[in-house]
Parts: sequence; structure tokens; C-alpha cells
Amino acid sequence: MGYKFDEKMENLKPSVIREILKYSSDKSVIAFSAGNPAPEAFPVDAIRKITAEILEKEPIDALQYSLTEGYTPLRDVVKADIKRRNGIGKEFDELIMTSGAQQVLDLATKAFCGKGDVILCESPSFVGALNAFKSNEATLVGVPMEEDGMNLELLEQAMKQNPSAKLLYIIPNFQNPSGITTSLEKRKAIYELAKKYSICILEDNPYGELRFSDEAVPSIKSFDEDGIVIYIGSFSKVLSPGLRVGYVCAHKDIVQKITVLKQTNDVHTGILPQMIAHHFLTEYDFDAHLENLRSIYKHKAQLMLDGIKAEFNPAVASTTPTGGLFLWCTLPEGTDMLAFCENAVKNHKVAVVPGNAFMTSDDEPTTSFRMNYSTPTDEQIVRGVQILGKLTKEL
Amino acid sequence: MGYKFDEKMENLKPSVIREILKYSSDKSVIAFSAGNPAPEAFPVDAIRKITAEILEKEPIDALQYSLTEGYTPLRDVVKADIKRRNGIGKEFDELIMTSGAQQVLDLATKAFCGKGDVILCESPSFVGALNAFKSNEATLVGVPMEEDGMNLELLEQAMKQNPSAKLLYIIPNFQNPSGITTSLEKRKAIYELAKKYSICILEDNPYGELRFSDEAVPSIKSFDEDGIVIYIGSFSKVLSPGLRVGYVCAHKDIVQKITVLKQTNDVHTGILPQMIAHHFLTEYDFDAHLENLRSIYKHKAQLMLDGIKAEFNPAVASTTPTGGLFLWCTLPEGTDMLAFCENAVKNHKVAVVPGNAFMTSDDEPTTSFRMNYSTPTDEQIVRGVQILGKLTKEL
Repeated sequence: MGYKFDEKMENLKPSVIREILKYSSDKSVIAFSAGNPAPEAFPVDAIRKITAEILEKEPIDALQYSLTEGYTPLRDVVKADIKRRNGIGKEFDELIMTSGAQQVLDLATKAFCGKGDVILCESPSFVGALNAFKSNEATLVGVPMEEDGMNLELLEQAMKQNPSAKLLYIIPNFQNPSGITTSLEKRKAIYELAKKYSICILEDNPYGELRFSDEAVPSIKSFDEDGIVIYIGSFSKVLSPGLRVGYVCAHKDIVQKITVLKQTNDVHTGILPQMIAHHFLTEYDFDAHLENLRSIYKHKAQLMLDGIKAEFNPAVASTTPTGGLFLWCTLPEGTDMLAFCENAVKNHKVAVVPGNAFMTSDDEPTTSFRMNYSTPTDEQIVRGVQILGKLTKEL
Repeated sequence: MGYKFDEKMENLKPSVIREILKYSSDKSVIAFSAGNPAPEAFPVDAIRKITAEILEKEPIDALQYSLTEGYTPLRDVVKADIKRRNGIGKEFDELIMTSGAQQVLDLATKAFCGKGDVILCESPSFVGALNAFKSNEATLVGVPMEEDGMNLELLEQAMKQNPSAKLLYIIPNFQNPSGITTSLEKRKAIYELAKKYSICILEDNPYGELRFSDEAVPSIKSFDEDGIVIYIGSFSKVLSPGLRVGYVCAHKDIVQKITVLKQTNDVHTGILPQMIAHHFLTEYDFDAHLENLRSIYKHKAQLMLDGIKAEFNPAVASTTPTGGLFLWCTLPEGTDMLAFCENAVKNHKVAVVPGNAFMTSDDEPTTSFRMNYSTPTDEQIVRGVQILGKLTKEL
């Protein structure tokens, strides 16, 4: 039978990039293509003890239906934590727990956007977000990134040209895929522009606590006096992605809409995972744990950057992230980047992600690719960068 | 700021029913208004042992990112289990794990329906499904229930009148809210009608294994030779709802679309919960566990039915479920059902769910209400039914 899928599904076809990524699952491939936390970053002993305690003392609470808004003690702790760390949370704000940050990207879009409504995005941007926007029939308008964040002139131009724009999506810290951090000046300017054009900001901050050099920059939400910033956080990169626990903090009118949609989407987020996160935050030294993560990623990032400096053709540019999991390499103009990536994975068993995966449309030209340093081992980083380096010199 | 939410959000406003349900959270209220498994139905010891074992032997697998399709060993076991129990699964079918059955209701609708596309539903039907459909801007067309399932004449009429209908939603076993089971004859007839009018069937079967009297009726999916049935299962009622693990089995072309949407929705379902379900199915006696659940619910259902027979005004009709968690009472025509429910909860502390919660629109007239027997204790069932009985005699 020919199924009558809705036309929105046409926008969600598998792309040429997936073909390349298929090779990454081969165990003999060095995968710089993932975005997984390092295995050594999981506090396994703590989670083992916590889980045993929960199932000993509160098994029914952990197994029964729960509230759509999330596990109340966890919500309270997260509210206090982001207030203390990032100065986030005004009187008018509310916070609910979600099934990862991804669920917020999907449901916030669903709440704000009808078919064809515009979402302004950094270009390049996180592919999972772009797909969530597309699946809700939003139209994506990319704003080019500079080394300190979006080009403001082009951002305002895009706002003027798209009066129906509903959301502006931004990953201000160690952006995926570019590794770029938006400067404080640009964060303030972006906020003012969003206010001027009545657009809500979707501030996605999964990597914020993974800063390993330079000073922290205040989040946009911390200066949100007008209730226009939807702040998205996650435990995926600082505790465990398999638990699928994230959260959204925004004006209560917005959170109420997301809650209604969440109820129709998955009723609530797994309660045992939420309880694990709660115990970890309250019974263990979360700051010391974060410090440990930062030192792991600082080491791995430095190893990759050193390798690039030593091995890559100097005509290849690379960003220098001050945190997070990714860096962004750009081949000389005119290079066939897709062929480079395809050759690397097929013939030399090193996988990177072609840059057009992160563009608002697959066919936007780019000679960049994304590299991840959190998943591979030190040995893999050294060897993989050597191999890629050799290939950059053959260009 | 006045937020520019999409117009679809207008359909998802809190209803008058929520006002009544608010009183249910009062601890002194006897809640026949929930749908939770009985606390004694959770295999707490087994889950405690299983979880300790997983976090001892495979902690990284349990905490790391995983596949959108679900934990492969669990998928394999569930495929084999529904094949053995229900004869479900053809060559063309595929099965993925989901964040409860609710996620399938949302994402299948998203895959098939654009704004205004029709979904045919049993009337009354599960409120969570109706809200998922509405949140995707589908138009609901209700088909009245008879004691053996939908009225077939009215179903075909609805199909003729709605050539754009994409899905037909049905809970064939111990339906929520009515407790009705659709007969084999009607299941076959419904299948043929769906085929004739090129409509896919969304067969939701969360309660199927909770039959405590009479013979099992084959699922519609078991005679799906044409790949038109989307079968939805769940571990919420047979293991734990807090784990949020469900699944969908359908033609692989349909499952592929749902998988794409799931990736943009929550990346994947919590992996530790999936591993717990897998260990329980493979290392424990699932059949004996189900037998225990059936005896718990048989006892509770009988207690409620006996009470209704002894205490209720004989003018009040009640269904007699042969499984599941719910029964459906209908007050005499002309009764103000909402006032009855409001009086019961506010002044007499017994909560039931007004029937219009389950209609395709809130203002559809009904004198029925839903009663749940799985959540309350035996004592609460006896006392609550006595109180309601007295109120039915004052009508």
C-alpha cells in the first residue's frame, strides 16, 4: 500500500551525509564523528549506589506514573543550581524537566510555529535542532557565524526580511558544530534585537559547564528582563545522556504551553532517571565532578589541537574551542569537502562529519567539517589526526 | 510580552474537567479517577536485582547515548514475545521501542496528518490520544461505541463522509474509558472497512495482557496481511509506567517515518529503563508475573462491580469489563452528570472522571463517567462505591 504520509515528511529524507556516517559504526573506524561524552566521564560508582538506594527506599515512587512537569525535588534543585551558577530565573519564570534538551527543541517549535513560520539559526548549527524545526514545518533562515558569534548586521537584516520569524535559535557556548562562543557584547546585542523584533530566543546550553579555558560569559537568559528567552539545559553532557533528562526554564506562559504538549508527547520523563539526577546533585559534589569533566575534555581538546597544528596542511583553518566537545575545520576554498570526508572514512577509516549536515539546507556550499574529541581515546585522537593531516596535504 | 503561539495551541486549553480533577490530588479523596497500576503490581525485588546487575556489568551501555530504534536485545525479545502471544509480526513489519505508547500516538499522527486531516475514533476514547491528535491539528470524528465495539454502520458512514481520513484509532481490549472489548467479528469488519477506504488502523493495546475473564480475542494486527495496522504496545501496565517504555510494530515504511520523528523528538528512549525491561522479560517468569497481575485486577474489578450492584441506583448502567483497569457508568438520561461528579468530589471526597473528558469535543453531551479500580485499595473501593451509591439514589 502507498501510505499517505503528510507532506511535512518530505523535508525529512535521509541525506547524503548519512551515507558517510554509516561507515562510522564500523568498529575499526576512528570516529571523530560522534558527540558522546567520554566513557570515563560517567560517575558510575555514584550512580550505582544512588540507584540501589532509590529502589530500596522509594521503589513505588520510582516506578509509578508521575507528574508531567517532572520530579518536584529535582525541579527545585535545578532551579536553585542555575540561579547560583548562571543567575537564571526571574519571578515570571518556571522550569520543567524534559526528556533531554531535544524534546524542548521539538515542543517549543510546535508551540510557536505553524507551517512556514521562520526560525533564525546560527549557520552552521546543531543538526538535531534543525531537524526538529523542519519536522514542525518551520522555515529555517541561517545567519553566518563569525569567530565571536552571529554576524549582527546579517541577523538584523534577516529579522527585517522575516517579520513572521517566531524564534531565534542560539548555542552561545562552544557551539555545536563550530566550537565558537558568542561574546558578551554580541549576546547583549542579540537580546536587544530579539526584543526589538518581538522574537523569542531559544538559548540552548548543553555544554556551558564544560568550559576548560578563559572566563565564563553570562548566559542570555541571565539578562532576560522581558521574558523572551527560553533557556534549555541538559544532564546529557554533565551526568549521562542515556538517562534522557533535560529541562527548560522560561516565562511561565511559555512553559505552560510546552507542558501541555509534553503531556500529549510522552506523559512525563522517566522518573527513576530524574531521581538519580536529583540524588547526584544533592548527595555528591557536583562541582568537583564538573571540574573532573573539564580536565578530561581540556586534555583531549589540546591533544587534538596540537595534532592539527603539527600534522595538518596550514591552509586548513581550525577553530580553538574554550570548552565543549567539538572543533570545526575548514578546507581551502574550492576543495571538494564531501569527497575529502568520503575518502577519509572509506579508504582511511577516520570519520568526521561533513559541514553541510549543519547548514540550514543540505546543498548550501561549505568546505568545513566537524571533529569531536570527547568520544575517541587519546591514541585514536593522535592517530586519526595524523591520518587526516596526511590527507589534507594531498589536497 | 504577548507571545505569538501557533494557532494550534488554541485547541489545547485546560477544560472544565481539569477543575474537577484538581480535587483528586487531595490525599483524603478516594480517587477512582486515576489510571495507575496497583502499587502491589510492581515486581520491586526483581527490578532492584536487575538494576544492580546492569550497573555492575554494563554501566557505560546503560548511561551512554544509544540508538533511536531502541535497545536491540529488547527489540528482539519484544518481537518474539508479541509473535508468540498475539501472532503479530509479518515479513514487512518492523518494531522500535518508544517513550511509552503515548509517544507513538503523537508521532504516528505527526507522520500521517496535516492540519484538518481526519482521525476516526471510538467515542468515547482515551483522552491522552485525543489530545495527541488535536495537538497535531487533526480533526476528530467520533464513532459511537456499542457493547461489542464501534457501530459499524456509523463507522462506514464516517469513512464515506471523510475521504481525507488518515487514521482509525481503536483500543480493542478493555477500552479506556469504557472497559468494552471489540468482538472478533467487528475487528474483522473494521479491518476490511479500513482497507476498503485506504485508512491505517492505530491499534492501541496497553491492557491486552490484563484479561481476567473470558477468552482472548485476536488482535487486529494479527490478521494484517496488507500492512495497514500500526500496533502499539506498552510496558506501563505490565511492568512499570514510570520507566516510560513502549513500542510500535508496523510496516517498515511507517516505522521508518516514526523513527525519523522520534530522533527529532527525544533522540532515544532512556536506555537503563529499556535494559531493565529486557532483563525482566528474559530472566524472570513474565507469564507468572502477568498471571499475578490478572488476579489482582480480577479481584478489584469484582469488588467494584459487586459494590455497584449492591449500592447503586438500578437506573445507573455499568459496563462489565473482562480485563483492564476501567469501567463506565451511565446515569439516567437528563441527569446533570457534571454536577453529580462535582458534588461527589467536592462534598463527598470521591473522584470519578466526567465522561465528556473522553468525547471528541468537551461539549458533546453524555451522562457517563469513568471509574478506575486498579489504583484504590480494597477498603477505598468498598467505601467509595457506597458513597457514590448513596448519591445515585438522590438523583
